[in-house]
Amino acid sequence: MISTTAPAGNGHGIEVPRGLSGVVVTETRLSDVRGREGFYHYRQYSAIELAEKRTFEDVWHLMLLGALPSAEDRRRFVERTLPLRHVPEALRPLLPALAAPGGGPLDAVRGAVSAAGSVLGLRPLYDLGPEQRLDDALLVSALTPTLLTALHRLSLGLEPVEPRDDLTYAANYLYMLTGEEPEPAHARAIEQYLISTIDHGFNASTFTARVIASTGADLASCVVGALGALSGPLHGGAPSRALDTLDAIGTPDRIDAWVRDRVLAGDRIMGFGHPVYRTEDPRSRMLSGIARSFGGELVDFAHEVERRVIEILAELKPGRDLHTNVEFYAGVVMELCGVPRSMFTPTFAAARTVGWCANILEQAADSKIIRPAARYVGDTPPQPVPA
Amino acid sequence: MISTTAPAGNGHGIEVPRGLSGVVVTETRLSDVRGREGFYHYRQYSAIELAEKRTFEDVWHLMLLGALPSAEDRRRFVERTLPLRHVPEALRPLLPALAAPGGGPLDAVRGAVSAAGSVLGLRPLYDLGPEQRLDDALLVSALTPTLLTALHRLSLGLEPVEPRDDLTYAANYLYMLTGEEPEPAHARAIEQYLISTIDHGFNASTFTARVIASTGADLASCVVGALGALSGPLHGGAPSRALDTLDAIGTPDRIDAWVRDRVLAGDRIMGFGHPVYRTEDPRSRMLSGIARSFGGELVDFAHEVERRVIEILAELKPGRDLHTNVEFYAGVVMELCGVPRSMFTPTFAAARTVGWCANILEQAADSKIIRPAARYVGDTPPQPVPA
Repeated sequence: MISTTAPAGNGHGIEVPRGLSGVVVTETRLSDVRGREGFYHYRQYSAIELAEKRTFEDVWHLMLLGALPSAEDRRRFVERTLPLRHVPEALRPLLPALAAPGGGPLDAVRGAVSAAGSVLGLRPLYDLGPEQRLDDALLVSALTPTLLTALHRLSLGLEPVEPRDDLTYAANYLYMLTGEEPEPAHARAIEQYLISTIDHGFNASTFTARVIASTGADLASCVVGALGALSGPLHGGAPSRALDTLDAIGTPDRIDAWVRDRVLAGDRIMGFGHPVYRTEDPRSRMLSGIARSFGGELVDFAHEVERRVIEILAELKPGRDLHTNVEFYAGVVMELCGVPRSMFTPTFAAARTVGWCANILEQAADSKIIRPAARYVGDTPPQPVPA
Repeated sequence: MISTTAPAGNGHGIEVPRGLSGVVVTETRLSDVRGREGFYHYRQYSAIELAEKRTFEDVWHLMLLGALPSAEDRRRFVERTLPLRHVPEALRPLLPALAAPGGGPLDAVRGAVSAAGSVLGLRPLYDLGPEQRLDDALLVSALTPTLLTALHRLSLGLEPVEPRDDLTYAANYLYMLTGEEPEPAHARAIEQYLISTIDHGFNASTFTARVIASTGADLASCVVGALGALSGPLHGGAPSRALDTLDAIGTPDRIDAWVRDRVLAGDRIMGFGHPVYRTEDPRSRMLSGIARSFGGELVDFAHEVERRVIEILAELKPGRDLHTNVEFYAGVVMELCGVPRSMFTPTFAAARTVGWCANILEQAADSKIIRPAARYVGDTPPQPVPA
């Protein structure tokens, strides 16, 4: 708890745990995580079941429009979102300069989404009705994958690949990334990963998006803030780290020595453990199955590392029931599908943009600004200003 | 309070007022507002006294480095910040495209600060030591006024004006805006306004900056998020609205009828009333004095409107002790100093960037992510996903 001995400026304020941990800031109809059960859901459906049975477009529709689409809804939704994939002319001259070396692709897309909001003249959510807000949410969530892949290619000195209207969201994403039409199994694997990544309860980037939305700002401002928060090392969600672990170990015969060294040194092993799940991460279970369906050396090695890490942790740190988290197999699946490692977190961000947009629309329907207080604990004023 | 009857996902969470109102999210040594006393301060000093006795550079130093500068500190600070005013080469090609018509100057600068972070490769705060964080804070707070004025001029089809190293922050700001060296009285008036605007207790944009900083993201990400929040109509702080009121009234003989119509219709009169101050807004008092020192028709008219609005409100809404807020005379002072109305809020944002940066540095020294919870209140899961 924050100390209560400090002098308060305006009244005493309400004491809560540090970082607002456990403080209920809003009600939501969008998603929740049940950590003890190893379960999370989007609206009334298991997120994993949605990933197994539905397309990305269907779940995008569910999150932004409130229900899974009928066949006719689906046709209309695809017709409505396809044109939004294409980069507007006014934005094109900006992309090469934004892709300049220096920052990573997440920094670059933050600039591109910001510029999209500005150049396309997105208006404050406060001034818009629900249908216009939905227009902006669909625009930003449809355009972000195109911006991400274009910036990635430009940063490598390659031409951006124009989106193809005959491909699904997921297949088109891989196509824009690589310039080649993906194998159906790869497109479907990435689609399942993307669906499972759309939302995951409340987190710092979602919260950031909602704080900005609560001021009535335009939708791009909210997504840009969320992208900034997502880029923070404490936010979590960096699937490349777990793959770096596999690289660092190198070969199956080195697993035991490497893991024991790390555990005895007190280091965390990336790809293992989760702050909320007390049992297996349901995303990890699904992605592990997808990886297994592809097979091959990397998958065998990953499974072997998973098995040995869990055994060694059980031996050296008994009582801690650790499992792989989403990062571990997400990295393996993306690697197998041809996503370059620098694009792992941006790929996550593309899908999460749909979740942010759903949260922004929900917040915009509320009229109360999110504005907590701070307690001043510095030197007592007023002290005279020296001349 | 948020309803407690809804089913909670992970435990019940901690109930607090809507919008986190009054919830203490952090301790701070930076600033506070005492609404009942009509007083606010930066660290241990009255903000108004600082504005009356010090330069912008001195207060910038106070906020970011923790103390007012000695003569030697001041020399070093100016030497350190002057080069940071200039737009880096890599950023220049982006500005014309960002200034494209559509969005306002605040949207454009959000894109430019984002691009600055990306192109200059600002690293996550989490990975930096205090001195490197200060480097980034000085860079972004020194560069933002240049970006704002350049984007403004480009949007009008004018060439940006390069900063002049022989001018103070405030004089250089007006110079870059208009292309002409300002009269000393105008430069000093804007300097006092800018100092009084650096910080003002906790607000939604400052909170946004701190939430993003709490993830360990880079400093540009934090400022970009804050700019987005500031652009929200519910955030407050739009000095042009009060001047629009003066325009709408038009002439002194129309004051009474206009004000009575508005009050009887239940409309708010822009430029009057403040959510925190229960007495005169200390910024308004200072700016009123500055306006009076200039004199002229607009100032006389503004004072007459102030006098009559307060009298009529006292008559029609007795018991409500309403006063002008900062917007009222800030608009008058900026108009007199040659700041175009579209640049009123951006000018506010330039100064507030210093406050945001101070808050970001303070937050970055804490290691706890700001991450509240939400309560799921939608349909109970899991319901089977239809095929």
